Amino acid sequence: MVLRVAVAGASGYAGGEVLRLLQAHPEVEIGALTGASNAGQRFGALQPHLIGLADRVLEPTNPQTLAGHDVVFLGLPHGQSAEVAAQLGEDVLVVDLGADHRLKSSADWEQFYGSPHAGTWPYGLPELPGHREALRGSKRIAVPGCYPTSVTLAMYPMYAAGLAEPEAVITAASGTSGAGKAAKAHLLGSEVMGSMSPYGVGGGHRHTPEMAQNLTPLAGEPVTVSFTPTLAPMPRGILATCSAKAKPGTTGAELRAAYEKAYGDEPFVHLLPEGQWPHTSSVYGSNAAVLQVVLDEHAGRIIAISAIDNLVKGTAGGAVQSMNIALGLPEELGLPLNGVAP
Amino acid sequence: MVLRVAVAGASGYAGGEVLRLLQAHPEVEIGALTGASNAGQRFGALQPHLIGLADRVLEPTNPQTLAGHDVVFLGLPHGQSAEVAAQLGEDVLVVDLGADHRLKSSADWEQFYGSPHAGTWPYGLPELPGHREALRGSKRIAVPGCYPTSVTLAMYPMYAAGLAEPEAVITAASGTSGAGKAAKAHLLGSEVMGSMSPYGVGGGHRHTPEMAQNLTPLAGEPVTVSFTPTLAPMPRGILATCSAKAKPGTTGAELRAAYEKAYGDEPFVHLLPEGQWPHTSSVYGSNAAVLQVVLDEHAGRIIAISAIDNLVKGTAGGAVQSMNIALGLPEELGLPLNGVAP
Amino acid sequence: MVLRVAVAGASGYAGGEVLRLLQAHPEVEIGALTGASNAGQRFGALQPHLIGLADRVLEPTNPQTLAGHDVVFLGLPHGQSAEVAAQLGEDVLVVDLGADHRLKSSADWEQFYGSPHAGTWPYGLPELPGHREALRGSKRIAVPGCYPTSVTLAMYPMYAAGLAEPEAVITAASGTSGAGKAAKAHLLGSEVMGSMSPYGVGGGHRHTPEMAQNLTPLAGEPVTVSFTPTLAPMPRGILATCSAKAKPGTTGAELRAAYEKAYGDEPFVHLLPEGQWPHTSSVYGSNAAVLQVVLDEHAGRIIAISAIDNLVKGTAGGAVQSMNIALGLPEELGLPLNGVAP
Amino acid sequence: MVLRVAVAGASGYAGGEVLRLLQAHPEVEIGALTGASNAGQRFGALQPHLIGLADRVLEPTNPQTLAGHDVVFLGLPHGQSAEVAAQLGEDVLVVDLGADHRLKSSADWEQFYGSPHAGTWPYGLPELPGHREALRGSKRIAVPGCYPTSVTLAMYPMYAAGLAEPEAVITAASGTSGAGKAAKAHLLGSEVMGSMSPYGVGGGHRHTPEMAQNLTPLAGEPVTVSFTPTLAPMPRGILATCSAKAKPGTTGAELRAAYEKAYGDEPFVHLLPEGQWPHTSSVYGSNAAVLQVVLDEHAGRIIAISAIDNLVKGTAGGAVQSMNIALGLPEELGLPLNGVAP
Repeated sequence: MVLRVAVAGASGYAGGEVLRLLQAHPEVEIGALTGASNAGQRFGALQPHLIGLADRVLEPTNPQTLAGHDVVFLGLPHGQSAEVAAQLGEDVLVVDLGADHRLKSSADWEQFYGSPHAGTWPYGLPELPGHREALRGSKRIAVPGCYPTSVTLAMYPMYAAGLAEPEAVITAASGTSGAGKAAKAHLLGSEVMGSMSPYGVGGGHRHTPEMAQNLTPLAGEPVTVSFTPTLAPMPRGILATCSAKAKPGTTGAELRAAYEKAYGDEPFVHLLPEGQWPHTSSVYGSNAAVLQVVLDEHAGRIIAISAIDNLVKGTAGGAVQSMNIALGLPEELGLPLNGVAP
Repeated sequence: MVLRVAVAGASGYAGGEVLRLLQAHPEVEIGALTGASNAGQRFGALQPHLIGLADRVLEPTNPQTLAGHDVVFLGLPHGQSAEVAAQLGEDVLVVDLGADHRLKSSADWEQFYGSPHAGTWPYGLPELPGHREALRGSKRIAVPGCYPTSVTLAMYPMYAAGLAEPEAVITAASGTSGAGKAAKAHLLGSEVMGSMSPYGVGGGHRHTPEMAQNLTPLAGEPVTVSFTPTLAPMPRGILATCSAKAKPGTTGAELRAAYEKAYGDEPFVHLLPEGQWPHTSSVYGSNAAVLQVVLDEHAGRIIAISAIDNLVKGTAGGAVQSMNIALGLPEELGLPLNGVAP
Repeated sequence: MVLRVAVAGASGYAGGEVLRLLQAHPEVEIGALTGASNAGQRFGALQPHLIGLADRVLEPTNPQTLAGHDVVFLGLPHGQSAEVAAQLGEDVLVVDLGADHRLKSSADWEQFYGSPHAGTWPYGLPELPGHREALRGSKRIAVPGCYPTSVTLAMYPMYAAGLAEPEAVITAASGTSGAGKAAKAHLLGSEVMGSMSPYGVGGGHRHTPEMAQNLTPLAGEPVTVSFTPTLAPMPRGILATCSAKAKPGTTGAELRAAYEKAYGDEPFVHLLPEGQWPHTSSVYGSNAAVLQVVLDEHAGRIIAISAIDNLVKGTAGGAVQSMNIALGLPEELGLPLNGVAP
Repeated sequence: MVLRVAVAGASGYAGGEVLRLLQAHPEVEIGALTGASNAGQRFGALQPHLIGLADRVLEPTNPQTLAGHDVVFLGLPHGQSAEVAAQLGEDVLVVDLGADHRLKSSADWEQFYGSPHAGTWPYGLPELPGHREALRGSKRIAVPGCYPTSVTLAMYPMYAAGLAEPEAVITAASGTSGAGKAAKAHLLGSEVMGSMSPYGVGGGHRHTPEMAQNLTPLAGEPVTVSFTPTLAPMPRGILATCSAKAKPGTTGAELRAAYEKAYGDEPFVHLLPEGQWPHTSSVYGSNAAVLQVVLDEHAGRIIAISAIDNLVKGTAGGAVQSMNIALGLPEELGLPLNGVAP
């Protein structure tokens, strides 16, 4: 099987990362690369690291350029995916890298994004119980947000095993690529190098309801999420420090067992041996999530920490993994497990 | 008054930063610079940024080299300060940059440091109620740890005002200089650039009991601290994200008022206007702590975030500020308020 | 003497750095802070590291706001200084941080900047022979470019001593703040962290004629400059690697003597002991230039390397130093010699 | 064909990068991982980013552990390769990542390395005329140094085409991984972040004679190399700025043609379109070299600039590319062309 794949939004960070991965995928032939304001430019000027595609030209995003593909990835600004997807046939696999089809609650969508809700698609986090099955054969995939991926992988086993109280307290540090490629003064290298800073504090970040949506069904009770994202001086990576009060009587052995059970067979989630902690450098460019969990007996809290590459497992890699599942290909096909370090 | 000041451990990061500040202090004359393994070397080879001291020579640390000074700063490995201090006269102001004399509980000291407890000295965090007074005229000062400084400043007002439940959940990101200048492979630039990683997770960090010691008396009940430090890819700075459940009925206005009351007259603590969040870049090289606090009504939690320079307000600047108080000098003398940015 | 000083362009990087330095200057009172598009905003939102000025408000740049000051610093886009300066009295000291009044050759100006030439002002590099004298009492100062400062300090002694052939080959690495605070996609943190890249290669950089203008009179023959600037993943600092063929018979001892003679009495130029090389970290936030020079006998070339902080000695610090000279104040007043490191 | 491959020095940066690449190589089965002081440790503790090898154990380097492999990569300290290679059969392909077998001149070796010369092996830079042919069928390969790779690729076409005078002036900026994984204080993250610094200035760097050895035969006259390496605040990458005087009458069109001819068919050398310049970020993790060249007519010099990943094209990738050639496999097999960016 050779799949012909188009990427809309190919000049952005998410679209570029999809292309980096797809060029190493043995069953993929790269078709149209489309964009908006940069259409007509040589691709090598827009994504100089994608050397194998340097001589291609960015085309405009429209039904004509996207026609004739088996798979279309959408790396568009929030709110634009539904319209483009509607123009594509129902037999085309559409993978939305944006937020439009992630949330089940229209109220949450409208509160956090301020536009009409476009509906929900199967959610591309195969490690979450029941989700791998739902992706098989699907023609529409909503790729999770990068923070919800890191947090859900770190926390769901403690909730699924009934070990944690339903008040999650999370601080996550993200590399700057999570903020995209649009020129903004506060994201200049001069501003971010050597600096850590929080944003969206106090419940305001758009990824908060997505985390609650993932954790609540497994906890069997509503999980409240207190989430503080911070911007770290690095281009890629998320380190999510997630904690919750342990339910009375929880032991460290139970906790460890819950994580080993959840991830023992997962190809891309790597639970570290006890005593070793995740570094974002270990997953640079990789589709792996690296995890550790511990019970702080003095404070009575569980602390679970995950490291992912926000552009790979957090976006493009998770998208390709879900594409593989949807199409019946081996789940790991074309995806790097090892990180690029140092 | 011109004070003659010696620095023991002058080739380390803490000692170097004391010297950078003291060179700009109008009442100080820099006396002996002492060290251990580097004694005999030209100072410009050890601390090339201290250009004004380049032609000095590092002397060995002993009673002879430290004699004849009004003030002696000790930047020594943990456990060595008490012996050196005992050799200095009781009329000499001794400022310990290390941990030896911070903890009141001998049990805590022995659990976290593993050596006999050397006793407690007045604690150099003048912003903490009652502490400025205790420093006046003192001849011994224990400089707080960098993490406890950032956390205590961020959290004490919510406890002093009775607004927070006594279970503090803290994640802090620190620049690498906090780990010192000793050569260790995991602190190589190749390892830390582009990477975030946690350490001492689950209650193991030595600064945890110091935080509880500071917050508990103000809360009026024992405060439990869950503290997760992380290493960030930057040379300096701490961003501490501190949260606790709000006591029932707490309002955002009460919270804001508590912080305005605590810091309205403090020269080095800067509570930001609502909506603006601290960046560590704002306090690079500065003795300021920059703070913000918010009530997350959905999650029912207070989030307070502080940014400090771990080497200035977190170590050497706090030390000089306390020295000024102890000696009856203007508290701000010789200390920078503005950060070096971008 | 207390000088009332205004800064036009106070929300940019150059203007901000002037203010950081002036706040520590004992003879200065800071007057108007003015700008263009940001006028009306709280200064703490624009320059959050200038904590001592946080409550000020940015005013518009016009004759009314700039009136009534003894000194006015202009941190304006290239081509705008002449008009603003013309509105200020001849008894006001005007210090232009921009390029408008640096070049003597109108042809060079028009070729590299493309607008009419505004004329030449006394050039604020006091270390260059004859320049300190020309600055005394002047009411107009053209602050040198950051690259020309680093290159001229590194190279002029080899030319003044007649030891070097007149073909200079220079590669310089600059921190990103040299490119200013305007939002541009190629200057995003995501793009510059972890990356080195050249620009303006092959003779195109605007600072090239300024370097030739400085070196030629001292060489006594026209100096040709081949200059390659590169962007380095750091916010501040320039490391300039400058080389030229040695004139026949040149010895290492002559070379060293030429630099010792040139800089033996200079307060801000620090020639390192033989065998030690400059690091930009040593001059972070400092007005010092740190230098080393060596004769490569095998290749027959002199290599001189300088490190400066592009925003201090390369811009704002050099400006304040020249202001001190022009006004008859001690040259070092209010200027930091030590760097902020690590 | 499935090759069984061992890596000696597997816990270092070069060895680790070979393993990252080999895990993606379809004809390779990874055999023994060996080392010295770390032998006996779980590999996941030593190279946490090599997730696919986490459960392996590092064995000691000796004839027994290295026996039974088709290919052995040696990532050993300089001076140790010859002895280990002598213990391996003549039918085993031995790829030396170290310097021992690169230099033809025993005098150069002894001057720069200070030990007896071990002899010369076929040199693994297939892009250099004649070298690809020499590698075919060879059982011994000397992998070039990272700086010589970047410099030779940037400069050889100007010499092969007779366009440049034989005095090369080179400044290169390298990421810190080039200095290896041994703990040294001057390579701490605190020291290198935010700082550029030179080292080995004035002809002292060990890679200088290797550059001259590569360029001289193509120039047809002895090429003198003036080489200044600098350490840049990034983990990976080399940006080499290389220049030489143009021979009289050289035109920009001739220059461009020389480079197009040299690299038109090379899979891993990418000559950029005119006006676009190399960024090290474009080749992060990639085996590509990205180049640009220009004639500065005013200064009469040619400037050629290359960007490589020091650990890939500069070490491990070049090694695998040469292995492919030696064994008659497709040259590009298992090697990434695209970089990991942003």
